[in-house]
Amino acid sequence: MAVHETFVKNNAEYVATFGDKGTLPLKPGKKLAIVTCMDARINVYAELGTHEGDAHIIRNAGGSAKDALRSIIISQRLLGTREIAVFHHTDCGMITFTTPQLRKIVKDSDPNDEKLKVVDDIDFLEFGELEQSVKEDVKFLKENPLVLSETVVTGWVYEVGTGKVRRIV
Amino acid sequence: MAVHETFVKNNAEYVATFGDKGTLPLKPGKKLAIVTCMDARINVYAELGTHEGDAHIIRNAGGSAKDALRSIIISQRLLGTREIAVFHHTDCGMITFTTPQLRKIVKDSDPNDEKLKVVDDIDFLEFGELEQSVKEDVKFLKENPLVLSETVVTGWVYEVGTGKVRRIV
Repeated sequence: MAVHETFVKNNAEYVATFGDKGTLPLKPGKKLAIVTCMDARINVYAELGTHEGDAHIIRNAGGSAKDALRSIIISQRLLGTREIAVFHHTDCGMITFTTPQLRKIVKDSDPNDEKLKVVDDIDFLEFGELEQSVKEDVKFLKENPLVLSETVVTGWVYEVGTGKVRRIV
Repeated sequence: MAVHETFVKNNAEYVATFGDKGTLPLKPGKKLAIVTCMDARINVYAELGTHEGDAHIIRNAGGSAKDALRSIIISQRLLGTREIAVFHHTDCGMITFTTPQLRKIVKDSDPNDEKLKVVDDIDFLEFGELEQSVKEDVKFLKENPLVLSETVVTGWVYEVGTGKVRRIV
């Protein structure tokens, strides 16, 4: 059974206790954008004590700030956020491969399929060392001309083994 | 006070009830990737009854499948997911502007700053009609050669006013 077949039933429980959340405004109440990894073990709300209405949550493979730039510009310029917290995490898949390796995996999956060669245009944004990757992402945001200069930017590590967060920069 | 100053205190509560979640594996247990918007009102876990370890959660402005492609390839080829659920939502900021308008907002914020012209290279991936945007994203994923052909792809709308999910395709 595909997982999506459980969505409507599970959603009914959420709807039953939805309360007054339907009146929350479009703009994040805490003027915060969180950038973190898509990793299945990360429960952003529980981990940081955030709730519906508080913050934009941007998630991608690795929690890449570069990949998040389009979203961050929209978040700041149209929806008023002024703080960004970047979280990378221990045991991240992004440290286990390189872009050339993944391009090869994709192309080798069907060597006769010429269309797979478009994967050569993708930078998978892997990284080598966890804390350094956080520092680099914070630096990217602080120096990027499209990110508002008054933005408070912090960088963190989330430990999947303990649930703890640790500030890096 | 910046919001990040609350993270460590709030995190301590999560750590105290973390239980055995530290043993969860890197690969999502339900082989599912969810693509949804960064919108502050969306609580993915509660809305769909998912939990730590179940699914990759990819979030960006609008819940754009195109923007999520890098993450989806990593999710499928390296981490074993075989199902994708795309969620867009009512009252989404992505229907309120166009890319040329946002480029102008950014450049007009400091007309003397030549560096802001790099915003002209960014497609902000806004959309005009909600249900159509879901259909187009599902089509994009089903037709994209870099997405595995056996992938189960569904498209949904989340109603921020009621908490309900509704399948579109």
